[in-house]
Amino acid sequence: MNLTRRHMMGGAAALATVPMMSPTAATAAAPPAGKQAPSFYRYKIGDIEITAISDGANNFALPDTFVANKTKADVNAALEKAFLPADKMTIPFSPVVINAGGKLIAIDSGNGPAAFVTSKGNVGQYQTNLAAAGIDPKNIDMVVISHFHGDHVNGLLNAEGQPLFPNAEIMASSTEWKFWMDDGEMSRAPAGRMADLFKNNRRIFEAGLKKKVTPFEWGKDIAPGLTAVAAPGHTPGHSAFIVSSGSDKIFIQSDTTNHPAVFVANPGFHLVFDQDAKMAEETRRKIYDMLVAEKMRVQGYHFPFPAQGNVAKDGEGYRYVPVSWSTSL
Amino acid sequence: MNLTRRHMMGGAAALATVPMMSPTAATAAAPPAGKQAPSFYRYKIGDIEITAISDGANNFALPDTFVANKTKADVNAALEKAFLPADKMTIPFSPVVINAGGKLIAIDSGNGPAAFVTSKGNVGQYQTNLAAAGIDPKNIDMVVISHFHGDHVNGLLNAEGQPLFPNAEIMASSTEWKFWMDDGEMSRAPAGRMADLFKNNRRIFEAGLKKKVTPFEWGKDIAPGLTAVAAPGHTPGHSAFIVSSGSDKIFIQSDTTNHPAVFVANPGFHLVFDQDAKMAEETRRKIYDMLVAEKMRVQGYHFPFPAQGNVAKDGEGYRYVPVSWSTSL
Repeated sequence: MNLTRRHMMGGAAALATVPMMSPTAATAAAPPAGKQAPSFYRYKIGDIEITAISDGANNFALPDTFVANKTKADVNAALEKAFLPADKMTIPFSPVVINAGGKLIAIDSGNGPAAFVTSKGNVGQYQTNLAAAGIDPKNIDMVVISHFHGDHVNGLLNAEGQPLFPNAEIMASSTEWKFWMDDGEMSRAPAGRMADLFKNNRRIFEAGLKKKVTPFEWGKDIAPGLTAVAAPGHTPGHSAFIVSSGSDKIFIQSDTTNHPAVFVANPGFHLVFDQDAKMAEETRRKIYDMLVAEKMRVQGYHFPFPAQGNVAKDGEGYRYVPVSWSTSL
Repeated sequence: MNLTRRHMMGGAAALATVPMMSPTAATAAAPPAGKQAPSFYRYKIGDIEITAISDGANNFALPDTFVANKTKADVNAALEKAFLPADKMTIPFSPVVINAGGKLIAIDSGNGPAAFVTSKGNVGQYQTNLAAAGIDPKNIDMVVISHFHGDHVNGLLNAEGQPLFPNAEIMASSTEWKFWMDDGEMSRAPAGRMADLFKNNRRIFEAGLKKKVTPFEWGKDIAPGLTAVAAPGHTPGHSAFIVSSGSDKIFIQSDTTNHPAVFVANPGFHLVFDQDAKMAEETRRKIYDMLVAEKMRVQGYHFPFPAQGNVAKDGEGYRYVPVSWSTSL
């Protein structure tokens, strides 16, 4: 083995000094593809088929106030631990479509076609990736909304304000529906983000959908194999879901946490978009303790695609272990 | 907030008792898609575009001897820690294609079309996923082989024994080439796996490719931006690679480790397929210490797709942090 040993390089220093040549554009035969793969991913829970459909990701400079009760340095420390760049946030969006007994149920709808244009394609990819997954929005029987924030509801309408799921029953938790449709709550909403949310929700659910929304209740089945779970705090009626079939199940957490690198690792961090941060943390810890105890997989709306993994207790927080991508169904 | 609190469920116990209904097949409108997404993934290293192309994954019952110097229980403990099922192994295969300055360079070739048939599509997906990624094998200028094991070289030929990359220059490390083409080494190879490997390599490189192989040397550039790195042990001439452009780089580790849950977490575990296990461990530790010190990303042939991440020191071993999937290029 002397021959091969002789060739071994001297570790870091030697590796760092490898010569670099510039690619010669003159010989270019194959242009770069310049395009990411369509981001959808399939898995089975018993007899139920789930497809995670990416809506893209939002990239922005980390604001000082991203976490209300922590400093920007605390957030950067969490990002660094996850090998993510400092001073930046990339928030992915991963709605799912469930095929249970031939019924197609979408949970949430992404940022919508208008956001696709303003973000130059970074977000609002839902309809494109849905098509890549072979799913026609006309065939969707039901759209279940986890909560009434723009990145979950704006994809219900096209750029002209018409329904994008023309044959679907739209479902929302009765608590969420009541809160956002309440004129008193709207009149008391502080100007800025909260007032804008009310306005946006009236645009979508009144002007666009003519209030044709069916309420669901926590703890009850919305459809065979799909159960609504109370997860309030992020919004008053914020809902999570359990999909179960046979002995298998998965927890669809919606926005129980935002990005796992920051909020699964640190459940005590309060995202500025949590309407009742104390209640959101209480919900988060209760749900995550349950996930750990039951070793239940979790699908997260704001997890990096395919947005699914397991969690373990880790000090005061939790360790997120992304699922191993399965190359066959 | 009394209303929402009233609806909150009692944690694990309550969640476990959700009622379950059976999907009613009679209402079936949408048949399950029954098919995974094409598994390819793009990213940039400076000006270089890399596409990870999955060749699928091999599932098998965990043999007693998967790790030569550890018990089956030790392997199961590593799997459990990674939330993977006990007594089973799923080994993914993720070759890459590099577009550097318009030159298309494939590193390794997967299990080949014959394996696609015998595995019922679980492995040998390379050509299908390559097509999904928009890459024609006729346009590949160079195929660089990391080492001469079947899951890396069998994809060089089609089922009829003809070259699958008809216009590509085939490259192999001079050490690897010399070892497998040496008649003395072949005559001394123990019957079984080693003798079969020699036979397979003669079939591919002599009968199929008529010995038209260009040797490369460790520490030298194979192409602009692509440098060969010595990584012997797994085989005598086993090679890793660094792709670099501008200030960015990635380490293409080939089989420096097998599955990260077992061998990145436990670099002292000796995979039964490591020809010189002691040297393979030495190579592994040297390379991983370098990756940690330089915070260099690593692409692994046997990592779960998209087979890329970062590593941190963790006790006696290393912690693998899968990359966050980017939904745009």
